[in-house]
Amino acid sequence: MSNVIPATHQDLVEKPLYATLATVMADGQPKLSLVWFSYDGQRIIVNTARGRMKEKNMSARPMATILIVDPQNPFRYLEIRGQVEEITEEGALDHIDQSAMRYVGQPKYYGGVAPAESAGQEIRVLCKIKPVKVIAFGG
Amino acid sequence: MSNVIPATHQDLVEKPLYATLATVMADGQPKLSLVWFSYDGQRIIVNTARGRMKEKNMSARPMATILIVDPQNPFRYLEIRGQVEEITEEGALDHIDQSAMRYVGQPKYYGGVAPAESAGQEIRVLCKIKPVKVIAFGG
Repeated sequence: MSNVIPATHQDLVEKPLYATLATVMADGQPKLSLVWFSYDGQRIIVNTARGRMKEKNMSARPMATILIVDPQNPFRYLEIRGQVEEITEEGALDHIDQSAMRYVGQPKYYGGVAPAESAGQEIRVLCKIKPVKVIAFGG
Repeated sequence: MSNVIPATHQDLVEKPLYATLATVMADGQPKLSLVWFSYDGQRIIVNTARGRMKEKNMSARPMATILIVDPQNPFRYLEIRGQVEEITEEGALDHIDQSAMRYVGQPKYYGGVAPAESAGQEIRVLCKIKPVKVIAFGG
């Protein structure tokens, strides 16, 4: 096992695919979420809001695992077991707009995907997850 | 939150969809797997083989969480946090053939999906996961 995303599966972190994110509840039970993500060449970045369960889990227990499946072939996927290195507000508003554009072609997240009025009601954060073990399935 | 799968999302446990299964490694890190499953009206059933990581995790730490996403709408999904009630060999060989038929139209798993010779090399088991908390997203 390696902590590097192999060239054969690089496309899975570059495309705007939906990923499954596992975080850990206080009692040890995994929590699963379907998320948008981006990849900065070193870390998987998930954008969420302060106080959501996944953010609380990653703040308290900085372990997270991500599964990204090839939508054309369910037998080809990446499992990325990672460590949450940083949770930061810096850049999170720009990132959520960029994500809205990448995923659903909306230039603005608030007013385009989420209601405009919710913009002032939540604090966006970037959760930066560093791969510790990467398992690539399929050719 | 409830431990019941709502009628609005019942289709997601009845169709042969690929589910994401989260189990827990010895160090607490979630492990994710893409799996076939069935639902017996009370429990989610995952068929695997003795000694695989997910089976070892569920034997040692009987917590598992499953995510099933509507392939037509990524904003509609079920998160099922459950307890692994039983891991049994009983019925596992019939179940894997039934699953091969449901998922890929093959009457036999060994020789149809997996190599015929691997039939004697692994022990199939059913992992029966009872929902503890069910969270239904989307309409």
